[in-house]
Amino acid sequence: MHLAALHTPSQIQLNRHGHLKHFLTIEGLSKATLSKILDTAQSFFNANNQLITTPLLEGRTVMNLFFENSTRTRTTFEAAAKRLSANVLNIDIARSSTSKGETLRDTLWNLEAMAADLFVVRHSSSGAAHFIAQTVCPQVAIINAGDGRHAHPTQAMLDMLTIRRETQKDFSELSVAIIGDIKHSRVARSDVAALQTLGCRDIRVIAPNTLLPYGFEAFGPGVRLFNQMEQGIADCDVIITLRIQNERINSPALASQSEFYKMYGLNPQRLALAKDDCIVMHPGPMNRGVEIESSIADGPRSVILNQVTNGIAVRMAVLALAMQGQLEEQGLIEAIAQ
Amino acid sequence: MHLAALHTPSQIQLNRHGHLKHFLTIEGLSKATLSKILDTAQSFFNANNQLITTPLLEGRTVMNLFFENSTRTRTTFEAAAKRLSANVLNIDIARSSTSKGETLRDTLWNLEAMAADLFVVRHSSSGAAHFIAQTVCPQVAIINAGDGRHAHPTQAMLDMLTIRRETQKDFSELSVAIIGDIKHSRVARSDVAALQTLGCRDIRVIAPNTLLPYGFEAFGPGVRLFNQMEQGIADCDVIITLRIQNERINSPALASQSEFYKMYGLNPQRLALAKDDCIVMHPGPMNRGVEIESSIADGPRSVILNQVTNGIAVRMAVLALAMQGQLEEQGLIEAIAQ
Amino acid sequence: MHLAALHTPSQIQLNRHGHLKHFLTIEGLSKATLSKILDTAQSFFNANNQLITTPLLEGRTVMNLFFENSTRTRTTFEAAAKRLSANVLNIDIARSSTSKGETLRDTLWNLEAMAADLFVVRHSSSGAAHFIAQTVCPQVAIINAGDGRHAHPTQAMLDMLTIRRETQKDFSELSVAIIGDIKHSRVARSDVAALQTLGCRDIRVIAPNTLLPYGFEAFGPGVRLFNQMEQGIADCDVIITLRIQNERINSPALASQSEFYKMYGLNPQRLALAKDDCIVMHPGPMNRGVEIESSIADGPRSVILNQVTNGIAVRMAVLALAMQGQLEEQGLIEAIAQ
Repeated sequence: MHLAALHTPSQIQLNRHGHLKHFLTIEGLSKATLSKILDTAQSFFNANNQLITTPLLEGRTVMNLFFENSTRTRTTFEAAAKRLSANVLNIDIARSSTSKGETLRDTLWNLEAMAADLFVVRHSSSGAAHFIAQTVCPQVAIINAGDGRHAHPTQAMLDMLTIRRETQKDFSELSVAIIGDIKHSRVARSDVAALQTLGCRDIRVIAPNTLLPYGFEAFGPGVRLFNQMEQGIADCDVIITLRIQNERINSPALASQSEFYKMYGLNPQRLALAKDDCIVMHPGPMNRGVEIESSIADGPRSVILNQVTNGIAVRMAVLALAMQGQLEEQGLIEAIAQ
Repeated sequence: MHLAALHTPSQIQLNRHGHLKHFLTIEGLSKATLSKILDTAQSFFNANNQLITTPLLEGRTVMNLFFENSTRTRTTFEAAAKRLSANVLNIDIARSSTSKGETLRDTLWNLEAMAADLFVVRHSSSGAAHFIAQTVCPQVAIINAGDGRHAHPTQAMLDMLTIRRETQKDFSELSVAIIGDIKHSRVARSDVAALQTLGCRDIRVIAPNTLLPYGFEAFGPGVRLFNQMEQGIADCDVIITLRIQNERINSPALASQSEFYKMYGLNPQRLALAKDDCIVMHPGPMNRGVEIESSIADGPRSVILNQVTNGIAVRMAVLALAMQGQLEEQGLIEAIAQ
Repeated sequence: MHLAALHTPSQIQLNRHGHLKHFLTIEGLSKATLSKILDTAQSFFNANNQLITTPLLEGRTVMNLFFENSTRTRTTFEAAAKRLSANVLNIDIARSSTSKGETLRDTLWNLEAMAADLFVVRHSSSGAAHFIAQTVCPQVAIINAGDGRHAHPTQAMLDMLTIRRETQKDFSELSVAIIGDIKHSRVARSDVAALQTLGCRDIRVIAPNTLLPYGFEAFGPGVRLFNQMEQGIADCDVIITLRIQNERINSPALASQSEFYKMYGLNPQRLALAKDDCIVMHPGPMNRGVEIESSIADGPRSVILNQVTNGIAVRMAVLALAMQGQLEEQGLIEAIAQ
């Protein structure tokens, strides 16, 4: 797949009524669209605060195309699609697309022709899902389940849903600190974009310079950089700790695992600097004792497992909304005021 | 599985009312039976020409037994079975049947005893599905998803459905050309049998002698052989290009890939010799620039992706009809006039 | 997973109303509870003696966690869960739990947070399922699908269901012989416990001393040991032959396969010593000609394939009952008189 010449206007993901028809990236989506996703996700909890099953995608076929293995993310999408009553097919896309010398484009067209309604795409190359949505299968609702270092938009939205559900405050009132390996995290970039769009005015990025991306200033308004953890988390409402990838631990950039923990690990002393009701998040899987101390991960401030549950709700929401947007675009349902 | 002494009367696949109870091969099925399959498949499209989901196999269990890997075919059967609301189990049959020293017969009996209603069988040996239907599990509806070089009957039926839907003509009015590796193609044999049964009177097989099977004359009435492509496709209504298997390309039989393309590749000049509204088919996956030029594969005459969609409909049809025939045979439903 | 200090009171699996909330082991369950499982399983057969599909677990998510591969057992649980209309997710637990350095406890908590209602657990360590139920995820209904040499409780219950359905007698009236590798069989231990609880007063264990466990006397009341096959099966109503594991065949303990068959293989001469209507069982997969002669395995006394079908019914029963017990425990449904 040649991605060099790819343009990625966020408009690819909206239909002519301005509603989602793909879900590719947070960038370029309006506050109204993100709020719609959060409201829809919230609607999938019942009075006991448990996830419901609904017939919203009954008769629809969702195909999981994981070019890059991620058992956890695939499982959450599979669980979400089944709660929407969709048929789910896990495609062994690596084997399908190469074993018989077929081009990837032909493979995707074939899958579309099997009456697929939605593709969930995970790929190691930035922009892969955009490319498929824009160029290969624009009439299939494409959901980006993570691409390269670029974006992991459903993770961002589940973080936003968790913040909203757990703080019960408007994003404009919150101070949010994101700690750790900003440079290599697809989560960080997507989280910052979502927080900005939703009106958060105090976003603190806490990392050593070696773990910040080049051009960090491009993060834009409301974002401040801290090299010192203690300054960064002072009086904040939300702390998002990031995973240090295994392959980064002990890299020159990181000095060492114990060094990182000493400087940036979240421990009770540091957490005490945040607000009393500050919540603690982590995208998982955790390296206990590296990014976060176990007593905090398992303690009363932690909402880490709530994130996982909210992840199912958010994935249900983007699957359902993108499907609706496709039907609207193709004139198969009436345009809906969102 | 010892297949040497196997007899394969087509009657294995019909119940005492003459209705399908297995779907093993085109040979020996009547025009009425093939038409019933096509009519049933057609009924699974809605007014927008999209595949429906129906509760026809609700509560039924379909097991995919792929002794030979074929991700694509397995996926189409899984999609079809789920559109019929069946429970689908993909059995790791290679591992199941051998890892514990159990005989294949015992493995199949065990799967049947797990309350399986249908087996979808893919095997590299000719007659494997027949053997299971005749000898091992006659009360399970067996669907042949391709066996050796012998038969690939659902591919043939999806080709027939595509011809019927796209030409809107009776088979007796059509000239159909099949081009390429007839010798090694399970598709060619099944296609010819289906075309003959449905009344096609002008079937042209276009191939070098090296790619024709021994005993080609056995193809029977209505079939003519052409070594020259230009003569073969003159004025035809339907062109079916066949896949050259990777392992055949560059074999002595084929001389070389470019040589094949020069002699038998479908290009615009050659296509111009066919009728103006001639449709172009290919069972996939395509080797672009070998069997077919990309401009044709992606052009207005191509119905190659329609074949894929029709493949879901045809597989839904044979699953549903074979199940019905089994229930009828076992006295669990009334005999139905078909 | 450190299991050394694990206590396994059977009370873990009962809720405060005394109903199942996990299904871990036969030991400690009352006759009423086992009978409830059998009655529930029986209720899943229709008038034609075929398994039904029911909406009992509609909207529920069952996750298969097979730490140890067992295609057959996994398939039966998947088939059972689908007949209850549950969503089923097969988790690649080996890969999930280790590839990213996450602890197993975190992996399990994550899966629970994906809104899992039931875990089906297969593990090579005795007590693994207990550990998860007691310590890690007590609010998920845990079903033990076999752990180490310890227990295989659904196999025991399907054996009990088969005895009840096929003999139509009360357990107190039956003589049951269990033949073969008692030492290494998780089935034998569970079967003896279930038979005792259900009131069977004549349980005969037939094996050479080398295939008996240390502390055999601990099997408790009603169990007699026979080294001689002929004595052991005289006048019995039920014969359960056990599988000799491949890796045991030709081990010093066994002398040789042919030696075993000579001493303990079930053949017509020996079967003639049992009652006229004695039924013959085997947990599968069979080594024909080792534990049992083919003419018996395929003959009129054999109920070996009925065991497989009953296995689906029993697994449906324990899934449904444990789910109900969890809902009851958590106050989400009213307590039910069982």
